[in-house]
Amino acid sequence: MAPLYVARPLLPSMADLNDLLAGVWESKMVTNEGPLHDRLEHALADKLGVPMAKVFSSGTSALQCALLSLELPVGAEVITTPLTFPATAHAITALGLKPVFADIDPETLTLDPSAVERAITPHTAAVIGVHVYGTICDVERLQRICDRHDLRLVFDAAHAFASEKAREKIACMGDMSVFSMHATKLFNTIEGGLVTSNNSAWGERLSLSRNFGIASEESVQSVGINGKMSELHAAVGLLNLELFEEERAIRRGLRARYDLVLQRFPGLKKQLYQPDVYQSEQYYMLRVDPDAFGSTRDDVCHRLKEREIIARRYFWPICTDYDCYRNYPITSLQAVPVAEQVKTTLLCLPFHSGVTNAHIETIASVFEDLHAGVTIAV
Amino acid sequence: MAPLYVARPLLPSMADLNDLLAGVWESKMVTNEGPLHDRLEHALADKLGVPMAKVFSSGTSALQCALLSLELPVGAEVITTPLTFPATAHAITALGLKPVFADIDPETLTLDPSAVERAITPHTAAVIGVHVYGTICDVERLQRICDRHDLRLVFDAAHAFASEKAREKIACMGDMSVFSMHATKLFNTIEGGLVTSNNSAWGERLSLSRNFGIASEESVQSVGINGKMSELHAAVGLLNLELFEEERAIRRGLRARYDLVLQRFPGLKKQLYQPDVYQSEQYYMLRVDPDAFGSTRDDVCHRLKEREIIARRYFWPICTDYDCYRNYPITSLQAVPVAEQVKTTLLCLPFHSGVTNAHIETIASVFEDLHAGVTIAV
Repeated sequence: MAPLYVARPLLPSMADLNDLLAGVWESKMVTNEGPLHDRLEHALADKLGVPMAKVFSSGTSALQCALLSLELPVGAEVITTPLTFPATAHAITALGLKPVFADIDPETLTLDPSAVERAITPHTAAVIGVHVYGTICDVERLQRICDRHDLRLVFDAAHAFASEKAREKIACMGDMSVFSMHATKLFNTIEGGLVTSNNSAWGERLSLSRNFGIASEESVQSVGINGKMSELHAAVGLLNLELFEEERAIRRGLRARYDLVLQRFPGLKKQLYQPDVYQSEQYYMLRVDPDAFGSTRDDVCHRLKEREIIARRYFWPICTDYDCYRNYPITSLQAVPVAEQVKTTLLCLPFHSGVTNAHIETIASVFEDLHAGVTIAV
Repeated sequence: MAPLYVARPLLPSMADLNDLLAGVWESKMVTNEGPLHDRLEHALADKLGVPMAKVFSSGTSALQCALLSLELPVGAEVITTPLTFPATAHAITALGLKPVFADIDPETLTLDPSAVERAITPHTAAVIGVHVYGTICDVERLQRICDRHDLRLVFDAAHAFASEKAREKIACMGDMSVFSMHATKLFNTIEGGLVTSNNSAWGERLSLSRNFGIASEESVQSVGINGKMSELHAAVGLLNLELFEEERAIRRGLRARYDLVLQRFPGLKKQLYQPDVYQSEQYYMLRVDPDAFGSTRDDVCHRLKEREIIARRYFWPICTDYDCYRNYPITSLQAVPVAEQVKTTLLCLPFHSGVTNAHIETIASVFEDLHAGVTIAV
């Protein structure tokens, strides 16, 4: 068997891609907000049920442009979670802003609003919540806190594409929501990002931020970077928009199968089920309690790897483990922050339409072996 | 006639592109430093005669990653020219650094080393020279100044791809050279950027900077962004690498024809000829002296536009005209900075293999009409 990875990119057929690219080659409009780029933005706004959708070259450039649009003062503090992909914290730092880490809730693993409130200082300008593994933040409490302290609220929704909570679109929450459309995401444009907002007024500033602040041939209004998505990536996006719901449905079935197979092992805690959430199905994450299960998360990961199942210890290391943030504290209501407690237990299993019954049997047998304490001669 | 623009992207045949993309689709390695990305980096290092070449998602992300790699202190000053594309200054500002503008030389239109020296303060950390229109900076004097003051020297070489000065490769100068490979460039990857250096030691930091500072699955070392080039864009680059020299040769002929046609008009000053420079042929720029020619640059631009010839007033506005840098001075040895004197005279004419003899005749007739003072009824 070939190695099985956590993610496998959803790709349209080459024939369909060629049909779109033929028009691009004909017009020679290959980037700079071309016709496919515009079509993709409209299609995404429509699909996600949000008035404003802007596409970017990557999730990180989308986050950088979102923060640039907020025009926060240099050196301002932005509160976020340490349990996230590096991009969340780095997008803050790479703009000359300061990330401040607040602890997570032990059940949702998303930002703990009480910890956020405790982390606020006179320098705080914004909060970035992360819907990690597709589990939706406590949006209402975070919004109330931000309103009370006059802070901007942005969501990193990289794991929550086309997701809903209590029939409310995730893409409409906070000031803006930022999505990655990287190859590893449920919906992908190879490399790409997206910012959505219920407030269309952000649209103009976002457009400026992603195109060097250029308002017209005669006017550069604000600081901006190159966050433009090319027509090649937009073409992939337009086609994948027709395909991702089928992939999501397959993953929903896969989640049920994983749940069923793994439920017999004590010490494995599956991701929180939020009954009012329509999940993106981005990841299948579980927590391994070494005392109850009998082996550590790292043991599981290592043993799976021997069988060519490449699970990922997302998100470990957490941001405060990085060399560049090692002296940054995590503001917490606990003696040991929850993020520190859980970080060694998290494991993401392969989760895409390429996972077969044979793969699941292999995975189940690894858990079985480890739980039974059987040592396999290597 | 269809409108004629300053640039027209060089594109490989769809058939050739398909051959490469078939392999990408087969392997599903669509980004994250895939095989085509690696091949492109090696081919570029080879072509440009430089030991280290790293590709990026855009010229701006390349510049951001180059600056991130230098690990300049937050708030540090970076001296650059006001006569450049917005990206040069914005890449500095968007990292929380401060752009400081120094004046240009009246002949080369590149950074005036004396003005740079005058702009140095205890907060200065780096200098970014721009080989604007492919005219090469006074690299030796800039390097001596930077050495004396312990400053980093980076070149924005977006207009100087595969260029040489006195047989020395442009890509080898300073600490690093940064290239745009945007669709408008002689060599393009649709969207893309490149950093080269004679010092391979920068390679590791650049790789970290473009991939979130991730050193391994277990270690995030430094602040980084997403500067990765996808395999789609790398495929276009690999194919265009075989095509751009022919395009350059055509443009060299076009430059000679423009020179010949325009030489009869007083008050038109063509770009400085640097006899020891092998030009990139990125732009055909001329300066319009309204007193001697009888019409302004803006008149010429407007009248060309009426004939569907879309010339560009590159680079106007200059950086200190932007809303975001309006209160930034230009350090100069002149009462009125040279950049202010020339900015209303600069015009770039259409310059690519799509410019026909008929186009050139139209352009010549516009100059003829304006110079003769003939008013054409519109």
